[in-house]
Amino acid sequence: MTAAPPAVRVGVDVGGTKVEAVAIDAAGGILARMRRETVRGEAGVIASVSDAVARVAAEPGVGPVAAVGIGIPGQIVGARVRNAVNLGISDLDLGGEVTAAVGAAVHVENDVNAAAAGAYAIRGAVGASMAYLNLGTGIAAGIVHDGRVWPGAGGTAGEVGHVSIDPRGPECPCGQRGCIETLAGGGAVARRWSGDGEHPVLDLFDAADAADGRALSLRGDLARGVAAAVRVLVLTADPAVVVIGGGVSRLGDRLLDVVRGELRASSERSAFLTSLRLHERIELLPSDAPAGALGAALLAPAFEGVARG
Amino acid sequence: MTAAPPAVRVGVDVGGTKVEAVAIDAAGGILARMRRETVRGEAGVIASVSDAVARVAAEPGVGPVAAVGIGIPGQIVGARVRNAVNLGISDLDLGGEVTAAVGAAVHVENDVNAAAAGAYAIRGAVGASMAYLNLGTGIAAGIVHDGRVWPGAGGTAGEVGHVSIDPRGPECPCGQRGCIETLAGGGAVARRWSGDGEHPVLDLFDAADAADGRALSLRGDLARGVAAAVRVLVLTADPAVVVIGGGVSRLGDRLLDVVRGELRASSERSAFLTSLRLHERIELLPSDAPAGALGAALLAPAFEGVARG
Repeated sequence: MTAAPPAVRVGVDVGGTKVEAVAIDAAGGILARMRRETVRGEAGVIASVSDAVARVAAEPGVGPVAAVGIGIPGQIVGARVRNAVNLGISDLDLGGEVTAAVGAAVHVENDVNAAAAGAYAIRGAVGASMAYLNLGTGIAAGIVHDGRVWPGAGGTAGEVGHVSIDPRGPECPCGQRGCIETLAGGGAVARRWSGDGEHPVLDLFDAADAADGRALSLRGDLARGVAAAVRVLVLTADPAVVVIGGGVSRLGDRLLDVVRGELRASSERSAFLTSLRLHERIELLPSDAPAGALGAALLAPAFEGVARG
Repeated sequence: MTAAPPAVRVGVDVGGTKVEAVAIDAAGGILARMRRETVRGEAGVIASVSDAVARVAAEPGVGPVAAVGIGIPGQIVGARVRNAVNLGISDLDLGGEVTAAVGAAVHVENDVNAAAAGAYAIRGAVGASMAYLNLGTGIAAGIVHDGRVWPGAGGTAGEVGHVSIDPRGPECPCGQRGCIETLAGGGAVARRWSGDGEHPVLDLFDAADAADGRALSLRGDLARGVAAAVRVLVLTADPAVVVIGGGVSRLGDRLLDVVRGELRASSERSAFLTSLRLHERIELLPSDAPAGALGAALLAPAFEGVARG
């Protein structure tokens, strides 16, 4: 028997402002973690990701990297990324470019699906199934069953942000009206609130706490949108738990309280909704958990040598 | 090697008016099929199912029955059926009673999930995933991936009929407003149309074809409801195809035409919806296909003796 081949996998989560990377061992344990700024544009993203892989691999106790997983917004077709507008990518062979740069097999995954896989691993056993609901600029979910992310046939699995819940609701850039995202997406909420600050959703919650009427109304819309997304997930995939993450979830209990309040209020009028115990089925992803990077690492190509070694 | 044990499975679909049974061989091929009236009430349902099993087993070429699957409306807990209101069942150990009557292992499944498994088998290879959308008195779906019906954690997988799409919509018996079922469920449509005939939804379509204004409006609501259910399924489970069955689907192309028209009209306003090709992803279950009974048979307990024989 020869020496065991390297079993370390690296996962990289590419956000609009930060790139986060983790290195994991064969058992999924985190060996090292780092963050850096995202450089936008196609060359910038390739360089940011490759640098993050190299730097996390250079951490003590990590060593050679067997495979890399990348979670990134946009439409993923094989190892290509398309229409990742916030990153300045129109069509990029990210998998091929990063493989060439770091010399390891690369898997590219939608960022929300990667975070769903990571959230499932972080949370531990959750019974049959879990949904991860990402509240960021937009709203999307990843559905996990037996540890596997539900793939879908056409790339729209978990796109609950574009379920319309009100035919007279706000216009959505997607062309529909009343999409959940128009009420609860961070981007739409920021546009409607028109706060000047860096954290418009936080400002909105502060103003609502100070009894500003418009802020209360917009916060109510946000809670209704998130509650609707939870209901849509439970009435389709029926996950045991819905884990909420993404930028807006950094509001923590301030978010959870208004969403639970909305879920309770709607249940008061409905024995059916009451029976679903929705307010007990939601929880927050721990705010410092590297779900996206960990999930990307877990979805990286399995290194066959490990099994054979 | 001893003689092969019996490999025949029987599936029974219990509807409000008819019980349908099929017997299948080990490869899933249909050996025999029969229908009879449903006798309501707990004793009536046990007798109807047991009689259907005995009669289909007595058909030429069928022989001893290894296992039985039953698809039935209501809440299924293990082998028990609860709250199957249309059948007059409040809480019944249907599996135990039928096992005692017919002397074979019995699996009890929700009727829509059973029909989903049957529709998947009838349709043949459908790529990664399929949803079966049942348009009956109520509206519910079964989601099938790799031939397995998505189970869900709490018995509400596929309950798209109770996704609300309009906060000002009609009141639903479930306590919400604007549920898809209030617009497109056969029961709700019949109540709103108040037709006296035996086939109120058919009467409604006839009146709409004759340009009756109220019928046109209600038919439009029905089309909007079904289209919304298709969108919810594609934006959550993302099935390659949505197969539409159930009593209302007996309208055939008359139903498909108005639903496709609604899906096309909503796509005209949305490049995003256009990209989903929703009107191409729906199709009708063949009206004479025994999807419920076949699916119940396929979900019947695997007879281990077959694999070992």
